[in-house]
Amino acid sequence: MFKHNRKLQYNATPDKPDPLMARRLQESLGGQWGEMTGMLSYLSQGWSSSGDEKYKDLLLDTGTEEIGHVEMISTMVAQLLEGAPIYAEEEAYRSDPALAAVMGGMDPEQAIVHGLTASLNNPNGAAWTTGYTTSSGNLVADMRFNVVRESEARLQVSRLYYMTRDEGVRDMLKFLLARETQHQLQFMEAQEELEDKYGVVVPGDMKDIEYQEYSHVLMNFSDGDGSRQFEGQVAKDGEKFTYQENPEAMGGIPKLKPADEQLHNHQG
Amino acid sequence: MFKHNRKLQYNATPDKPDPLMARRLQESLGGQWGEMTGMLSYLSQGWSSSGDEKYKDLLLDTGTEEIGHVEMISTMVAQLLEGAPIYAEEEAYRSDPALAAVMGGMDPEQAIVHGLTASLNNPNGAAWTTGYTTSSGNLVADMRFNVVRESEARLQVSRLYYMTRDEGVRDMLKFLLARETQHQLQFMEAQEELEDKYGVVVPGDMKDIEYQEYSHVLMNFSDGDGSRQFEGQVAKDGEKFTYQENPEAMGGIPKLKPADEQLHNHQG
Amino acid sequence: MFKHNRKLQYNATPDKPDPLMARRLQESLGGQWGEMTGMLSYLSQGWSSSGDEKYKDLLLDTGTEEIGHVEMISTMVAQLLEGAPIYAEEEAYRSDPALAAVMGGMDPEQAIVHGLTASLNNPNGAAWTTGYTTSSGNLVADMRFNVVRESEARLQVSRLYYMTRDEGVRDMLKFLLARETQHQLQFMEAQEELEDKYGVVVPGDMKDIEYQEYSHVLMNFSDGDGSRQFEGQVAKDGEKFTYQENPEAMGGIPKLKPADEQLHNHQG
Amino acid sequence: MFKHNRKLQYNATPDKPDPLMARRLQESLGGQWGEMTGMLSYLSQGWSSSGDEKYKDLLLDTGTEEIGHVEMISTMVAQLLEGAPIYAEEEAYRSDPALAAVMGGMDPEQAIVHGLTASLNNPNGAAWTTGYTTSSGNLVADMRFNVVRESEARLQVSRLYYMTRDEGVRDMLKFLLARETQHQLQFMEAQEELEDKYGVVVPGDMKDIEYQEYSHVLMNFSDGDGSRQFEGQVAKDGEKFTYQENPEAMGGIPKLKPADEQLHNHQG
Amino acid sequence: MFKHNRKLQYNATPDKPDPLMARRLQESLGGQWGEMTGMLSYLSQGWSSSGDEKYKDLLLDTGTEEIGHVEMISTMVAQLLEGAPIYAEEEAYRSDPALAAVMGGMDPEQAIVHGLTASLNNPNGAAWTTGYTTSSGNLVADMRFNVVRESEARLQVSRLYYMTRDEGVRDMLKFLLARETQHQLQFMEAQEELEDKYGVVVPGDMKDIEYQEYSHVLMNFSDGDGSRQFEGQVAKDGEKFTYQENPEAMGGIPKLKPADEQLHNHQG
Amino acid sequence: MFKHNRKLQYNATPDKPDPLMARRLQESLGGQWGEMTGMLSYLSQGWSSSGDEKYKDLLLDTGTEEIGHVEMISTMVAQLLEGAPIYAEEEAYRSDPALAAVMGGMDPEQAIVHGLTASLNNPNGAAWTTGYTTSSGNLVADMRFNVVRESEARLQVSRLYYMTRDEGVRDMLKFLLARETQHQLQFMEAQEELEDKYGVVVPGDMKDIEYQEYSHVLMNFSDGDGSRQFEGQVAKDGEKFTYQENPEAMGGIPKLKPADEQLHNHQG
Repeated sequence: MFKHNRKLQYNATPDKPDPLMARRLQESLGGQWGEMTGMLSYLSQGWSSSGDEKYKDLLLDTGTEEIGHVEMISTMVAQLLEGAPIYAEEEAYRSDPALAAVMGGMDPEQAIVHGLTASLNNPNGAAWTTGYTTSSGNLVADMRFNVVRESEARLQVSRLYYMTRDEGVRDMLKFLLARETQHQLQFMEAQEELEDKYGVVVPGDMKDIEYQEYSHVLMNFSDGDGSRQFEGQVAKDGEKFTYQENPEAMGGIPKLKPADEQLHNHQG
Repeated sequence: MFKHNRKLQYNATPDKPDPLMARRLQESLGGQWGEMTGMLSYLSQGWSSSGDEKYKDLLLDTGTEEIGHVEMISTMVAQLLEGAPIYAEEEAYRSDPALAAVMGGMDPEQAIVHGLTASLNNPNGAAWTTGYTTSSGNLVADMRFNVVRESEARLQVSRLYYMTRDEGVRDMLKFLLARETQHQLQFMEAQEELEDKYGVVVPGDMKDIEYQEYSHVLMNFSDGDGSRQFEGQVAKDGEKFTYQENPEAMGGIPKLKPADEQLHNHQG
Repeated sequence: MFKHNRKLQYNATPDKPDPLMARRLQESLGGQWGEMTGMLSYLSQGWSSSGDEKYKDLLLDTGTEEIGHVEMISTMVAQLLEGAPIYAEEEAYRSDPALAAVMGGMDPEQAIVHGLTASLNNPNGAAWTTGYTTSSGNLVADMRFNVVRESEARLQVSRLYYMTRDEGVRDMLKFLLARETQHQLQFMEAQEELEDKYGVVVPGDMKDIEYQEYSHVLMNFSDGDGSRQFEGQVAKDGEKFTYQENPEAMGGIPKLKPADEQLHNHQG
Repeated sequence: MFKHNRKLQYNATPDKPDPLMARRLQESLGGQWGEMTGMLSYLSQGWSSSGDEKYKDLLLDTGTEEIGHVEMISTMVAQLLEGAPIYAEEEAYRSDPALAAVMGGMDPEQAIVHGLTASLNNPNGAAWTTGYTTSSGNLVADMRFNVVRESEARLQVSRLYYMTRDEGVRDMLKFLLARETQHQLQFMEAQEELEDKYGVVVPGDMKDIEYQEYSHVLMNFSDGDGSRQFEGQVAKDGEKFTYQENPEAMGGIPKLKPADEQLHNHQG
Repeated sequence: MFKHNRKLQYNATPDKPDPLMARRLQESLGGQWGEMTGMLSYLSQGWSSSGDEKYKDLLLDTGTEEIGHVEMISTMVAQLLEGAPIYAEEEAYRSDPALAAVMGGMDPEQAIVHGLTASLNNPNGAAWTTGYTTSSGNLVADMRFNVVRESEARLQVSRLYYMTRDEGVRDMLKFLLARETQHQLQFMEAQEELEDKYGVVVPGDMKDIEYQEYSHVLMNFSDGDGSRQFEGQVAKDGEKFTYQENPEAMGGIPKLKPADEQLHNHQG
Repeated sequence: MFKHNRKLQYNATPDKPDPLMARRLQESLGGQWGEMTGMLSYLSQGWSSSGDEKYKDLLLDTGTEEIGHVEMISTMVAQLLEGAPIYAEEEAYRSDPALAAVMGGMDPEQAIVHGLTASLNNPNGAAWTTGYTTSSGNLVADMRFNVVRESEARLQVSRLYYMTRDEGVRDMLKFLLARETQHQLQFMEAQEELEDKYGVVVPGDMKDIEYQEYSHVLMNFSDGDGSRQFEGQVAKDGEKFTYQENPEAMGGIPKLKPADEQLHNHQG
């Protein structure tokens, strides 16, 4: 069960409106690697967890924090949109390139659909979907996913940081950068503990079943030989990589049987 | 540029048809973490790479291999569908629970739309989308993504393995398990080399900008205290985690300004 | 069965082309609350209706009218795109901010994909989907949905009205505004009649089954006390709202059982 | 900012597992009208609100409660999936129609992708998307939307109630039914207050602009005369509906100009 | 503008309910190549047409007919769902394989979401989208698309025909088969006339611009030599196909420049 | 199985960067009719083929070539994005309309998400999906689809050609135009051979089943009489088209039965 505090976790007020930045920030909200992906992945993993409270609680702590990040960015976006020139007439931007850039670069749906407040979409107006989230039941895999979520998100925030000079926006981004550092590090920590317990290859209990003669071979399917440099390096599971210059096709030429006539598979 | 060899990389022939398994295998083909996600993520990362040939070539090798995995699974699925009882009449399954299970559990679109061959969807018929792929320009983040792709994929293949007793299907899955071991290990290797160069937190050059007082704090947003167990542990960047029992709301209560009247934002 | 009259229901000719407006109008065509959502929701509800002809006919009347609205907007959009400067070279817009705004703000797919005619997407190019429609079999719920469709649509048309000075476009929008008034009012009328018959809470026949001690309680999950103002007000079903300052968690801490080993749910 | 309490808002434990019900309940979680649609619509509306605290707080109260409903249903689904027969072999279901029904009717992704825990999809495995949510900036329209969300959701819960005899599942559903009664009633209350202030037709300030001669006319586009029964009834805004037997096409036959040759619009 | 006749274009009444067939028929309604794809493609092409009335009218005739086909199939599906055993308890299907097949194979959303009436989705519950439609402004290309729509649709109807013995369903399908024959033939006729006018390669006016040395070469990228059989055959534009055994890579190895540092493209 | 050659099939280097063109070219990569649609449709058709090697090999040749086209366009897009002014400050574009056009017209995700490299989306940022592909098992239908894919793609490339003056971009487009000519012609050739074998109406073996009295009738559902011009023309199957001025509704007014009470289908 959840409770909401009207105060934001951190400041989210721009120095002044900027509709182009309002559009760009939607990436951190409704993009593939935005805060909603973190929030619903971690919560779902936590709710589905049947194991150690250490990890379950970590997931629920972080998932809950992320709801507050969605809140902060939504709040920021609405303020960046204040007074956006959606009703500007051609006379106005005929002589004003800065206004022309805004006319061209705004997300028209933030105005038409949302009345100049945040959407839950990405900057190109694509709806966010749970197809971006992951909750597999296997925490080694999912902690790795969580590290990626925080890595891609922090990369995007870093890029966004340089796309504005607004000190208010940057203030919020500096906070988000720090939290994404923490989240990367904590999920790595959990990942490593879980790898120690279950093995470094996910899942750790299929080694005796797989065909091990193919499990440490760099196969050269592209004619560069860059990947040969890994040859002989020791993999994280202690075995060495070998290199296969010309990986062979071992499977024969497949020949499918014609289908039942009632399927009308007219194949020539 | 690419060339195709009609021979498959490995065997992909079941002992006998099984329409339920034909549906389940679509996960490895057109699911969020299926082979197409690997194929198009690695190829796109490779094509976009401007750096060391070692990594670029590794990405292109593996992306190219994955096209062949899509081929193998497509071939397998078509054979598992041979003679599926799509035209069975009620009289037939009225007395045959095994047939009833198949009637209920088949993907009807594999028959109606694809003439009993593979689709490019997941087992629930959802179309695969490039929204599942990642190519960010930052190889530390993307190598981590690639490790996740191979981890989630191998986890799913492991589950699929136990869902069938067909030795032909299992033969193919044992090969895929091994390749996914290799791919996990090679991408981890690349990831670690890149972390050594650029830092363990992605991206590695924003530390002086973020608010460091928040970058190593476990904030307790869920009332369990499992995550407190990380307190004092040394994070992968060498600093220690601290723990905040009651994270405070630092940001004030936001107050948005009313919008322009022409937006008709009637807010009460 | 349907018949088509080549004449439009109302005028749909702009005074002059305007590619930015051509993009914005796509919201009324292919947006979440656009005319296609009305058209296919009402028709589907009408086709699925097993009840009173009064409502069934109303739905089919209005759904059929909406096909004509899709037609009008498609026609308008194509005209707004006439002569759009898609082949303008940099020299042309280097000195012309109005042209620069258009270069930036056009939907490039209206040109590349549709040859400067309307798409069936929203202004951000997202495809319209039947995921936006509703036909539940329960007309109380669906009449409410229909009122919302017309409310959100009319709100958007009102915003679009102020985004242009073109008298031809405004002429069409004034007509659409009026029809959306009619449709809001007619569906409200139907809604109220159906509420009188089936009860104001949907569905009306589950009151004896639900836990009534929780059915009129404002629970205070956010620390503001604005919602306390509803306390004591009489709800539309005749009962009074009560207020719970600190809603309690009644459900215990869930503890899931570990899954079967073959699922590899490594949870720590 | 949000805080999480490990205890659930209400009980969410089934008497015994039931994989078919585990699939069906996904509708209340990740369906078009499921709890996520409520949660993110209300929160987004609340965060975007610039008006009266009474409504803003109501939205945030309810949105926050809904996160807990997503949690309850996720927890329930995981328990309903315990021990699901995903590894059953044909011998097992050859003689067991109940098992055959389960083999056919389970969602295979709940096993393969989520390790027998809840997904964030609907029962057909379609990902939930923010395309289902609404936050328009206009609270009259949005309160109406919220009433619909609760109406369609309660309708679905009512149907789900009769699809199981499990007393544990029914216990949770009886609680949800009650909360959805409260939410319908509270949002209706808010809707009516806002209608009193802003007018019953959304938005309320465009009446002088629309073509009023078309704003109260039932147009007969389907040859039934059911809708004529509304003729003469007084609409909620105090005016009477009129009826037009043969609505005329007022707009002329549109004639588009041929496009620029470089578009290759070969039209015959 | 459109008018609706309550009578269906053709009979759409099954002999008796069949929930499995009710699910399968959704393909013809809301599938990639279902009636909605025809309806909205043809109408959109017709509304966007600026050319000869012969083709414009043909498109509008057929698009309008297809609305009636959506109506027929929706009506049929609702009747096939009558009395579907959605509330069957385990005791009932424990001993009844036919019921077990239905329990497994029904679309649960047809019951939960639509109250046992048609959805606008495909049999796997995926929402129909305008991403399936085409209206390019070029009628040669689009008439070809229309022939494909009718070909794939008729193929699916043919498969569906053999999946049922219900004479009522088959009666409707026999009618749809005939109309899809007509539509294939009429669009082929239009296609050929337009090809005569504009050339057989779309678009017909770029021949002098393309590199003609590559425009009639079968390039052998797969190691089979089946495609060599086309060598020397005369293409539809009168020129002969040549065959290139080993197509060469003419483009060099691309080398991208490193990106600006502020993008953090850490590439190794 | 596939192999990759680091050399591109053809040149893909622009004379100079152009972020607007970088966005537009995404249509040919990740649009509905882009190269990925060709690549995965042809490969899937080829892998699913059980018939004549002539067609199977043709499909695999062409599908393999298309992977290389995705590679070429990805490479081109990355170079067009070099040095794009994503960090330009307002002072810079306040006086520069050309820069303003770029600020407005760039795809912000190419920068934020992909570090100024290609995405796998269309120019409006919509993810590519396998919902665009077709592999039906029937090669007559699918060859027709393939001709359409190449027709719509070549039409778009033709439009893109005139949207740039960059000789490097045009060089690549001239090559793609030629290959799309070849692919149109080869698939037409295959289509005609298959039509000769299986009949011109797809599928060719249902003629005796369909109601032939409706299979050659132009039905006049739109009040124009343009389509009457086809009357008496000989269709491709040798029969003449007839014309029905007033197509009648033959199907009666449908009357659905009320649903079970537990569905709460309150219909009035």
